[in-house]
Amino acid sequence: MAPGFPVRKGHVMNTRKLLLDMDTGIDDAMAITYALADGSADLIGVTCCFGNVTNQTAVRNTLDLLSIMGRPDIPVFYGAEHPLEQNSFRVSDACIRIHGANGLGNVSIPTAGEPEKISAPDFILDAAGKYGENLILVATGALTNLAAAIRKDKETFAKIGKIVFMGGALTVEGNVTPYAEANIAVDPLAAKEVLESGIPMTMIGLDVTHKNLLTRTEAARWSGHGRAGKALYEIVAHYIDNELEQKSCSLHDPLAVAAALDETMVETHPFAMTVVTMGEAAGRTIACPFADQCENKNVSVALETSPRFVPEFVGKIESFLAAREKEEADRP
Amino acid sequence: MAPGFPVRKGHVMNTRKLLLDMDTGIDDAMAITYALADGSADLIGVTCCFGNVTNQTAVRNTLDLLSIMGRPDIPVFYGAEHPLEQNSFRVSDACIRIHGANGLGNVSIPTAGEPEKISAPDFILDAAGKYGENLILVATGALTNLAAAIRKDKETFAKIGKIVFMGGALTVEGNVTPYAEANIAVDPLAAKEVLESGIPMTMIGLDVTHKNLLTRTEAARWSGHGRAGKALYEIVAHYIDNELEQKSCSLHDPLAVAAALDETMVETHPFAMTVVTMGEAAGRTIACPFADQCENKNVSVALETSPRFVPEFVGKIESFLAAREKEEADRP
Repeated sequence: MAPGFPVRKGHVMNTRKLLLDMDTGIDDAMAITYALADGSADLIGVTCCFGNVTNQTAVRNTLDLLSIMGRPDIPVFYGAEHPLEQNSFRVSDACIRIHGANGLGNVSIPTAGEPEKISAPDFILDAAGKYGENLILVATGALTNLAAAIRKDKETFAKIGKIVFMGGALTVEGNVTPYAEANIAVDPLAAKEVLESGIPMTMIGLDVTHKNLLTRTEAARWSGHGRAGKALYEIVAHYIDNELEQKSCSLHDPLAVAAALDETMVETHPFAMTVVTMGEAAGRTIACPFADQCENKNVSVALETSPRFVPEFVGKIESFLAAREKEEADRP
Repeated sequence: MAPGFPVRKGHVMNTRKLLLDMDTGIDDAMAITYALADGSADLIGVTCCFGNVTNQTAVRNTLDLLSIMGRPDIPVFYGAEHPLEQNSFRVSDACIRIHGANGLGNVSIPTAGEPEKISAPDFILDAAGKYGENLILVATGALTNLAAAIRKDKETFAKIGKIVFMGGALTVEGNVTPYAEANIAVDPLAAKEVLESGIPMTMIGLDVTHKNLLTRTEAARWSGHGRAGKALYEIVAHYIDNELEQKSCSLHDPLAVAAALDETMVETHPFAMTVVTMGEAAGRTIACPFADQCENKNVSVALETSPRFVPEFVGKIESFLAAREKEEADRP
């Protein structure tokens, strides 16, 4: 990255800066859109990771999505291609089914833009150094990039003002195994290193994300708003079609962004946390059993959510898409 | 067993019946003594299990202890010799150090009595059928006998009025590994089957037992009360000598008996619970991740204890030993 991070022409700069770390599939796409729609923090970049899709596909999807949403100026970064201590990664059949072969519900959107040259962990550390307390990092995929950044320079990483991740399950069933949630299951070792780092962070797990459902009817409110609205609705419709009832979907990644931008969206309880890495419980996020770490309850685990979230999520995205439609119509 | 369970001559019978399942080492010995000292439930038998010692040694120690405490009439039963799905068991070096090679701090007490012919699981089921709601079962070793009884006749087992076990760690470090407490670690599969049975029970884990310490000074109050008092103090002194500070010891098993006899001794929170059986977290008791079981929060996990416990424990045992001393002195 050039020393100055991009500032959109005519855009009022916020003090708060937002950095998203994503394995851009469908709920990530909703989370990016929500971050743009909310607008209370400047999205300074998106770092990518394997997970719902490959790292390559996550980068492609992020670039394309930012472009259709009118923000091709936001930089996108390649990140981890596989778990910390493995040499390869293959997208699971479940992810291909849920997110579609292209990760965006098999909806085609125009290809646009190129990623930056520096790596995801390096950009995270650059941003941490530059913005410190004002930086909000939201991770919605495997925690591999975060673990890599911590391994490289924990002191700088710890300067980040707020870290929120979507992942894990403390009090409820997992979604990959009974024990494990997908983002943790895909790289339990990385998650263990991040949670045990002692650095304060907020965990938005299945404990709360499964409580926030987006119905097809609500998503349909977006569909009439230009090509961006049509694309987003079609992408999300694929997601809903692959849910059991085919009527609604859980807003996993968007809730993490909402909780990061507005603390009142969730109620949390502080724990020292770790991740089981082997055995049948591999990928389970559990209260940390190491006495010397138990004292430092650095992970605020969300256990309840506000009823405001879903209506605000739907409404803000609708307003954003309407403005985007007008912007495109007004373009000379 | 003969159809009628033993009634001590001159003893007022309680409605509540107590059955202890133990791997009789030192804190088990204190728990037996406390059960006799409290006297609010009739101790109808002690079933034995491998754990702190071998099953054979647990039977020997229980018989000898009951005899020196003046209750050779209470029947003792052989139980599991090894974990459910294993063929052998070896006492750990840590247990030999903590409990002594004979399981009673290398203190010699006279050998007395013989065990019954029926097995521990059979006696547990017999008692469940006979006493039902009035039966209190307290397990302070591996949960292998309980799992075997449940496998054999879950319906009858479920008639037991109250089940309390000492074991596990939900919010604190284990004592065998960072994850695992000894009674669970020694047979995680048995514990998993018992906890997932759906049958209501109370878990007295390291979360609370490590909060209740017996000092050497307190234990010394017992030592002047005859041969039983002298023996119990010497046994417990060995236990304290093997603690880090050599000043006090945790009252693991006695707290389980106390909580079973007096519900106000602990504050509990209901959970569905399971046990990790493989990997680095093997033996960890965790909130159950199986959605269909999460609803049935059958395990009341003790998270706080009453400050009354230790003084009442010391005092009741002292009074009991004083009476026992007088009983022996009065013997013609």
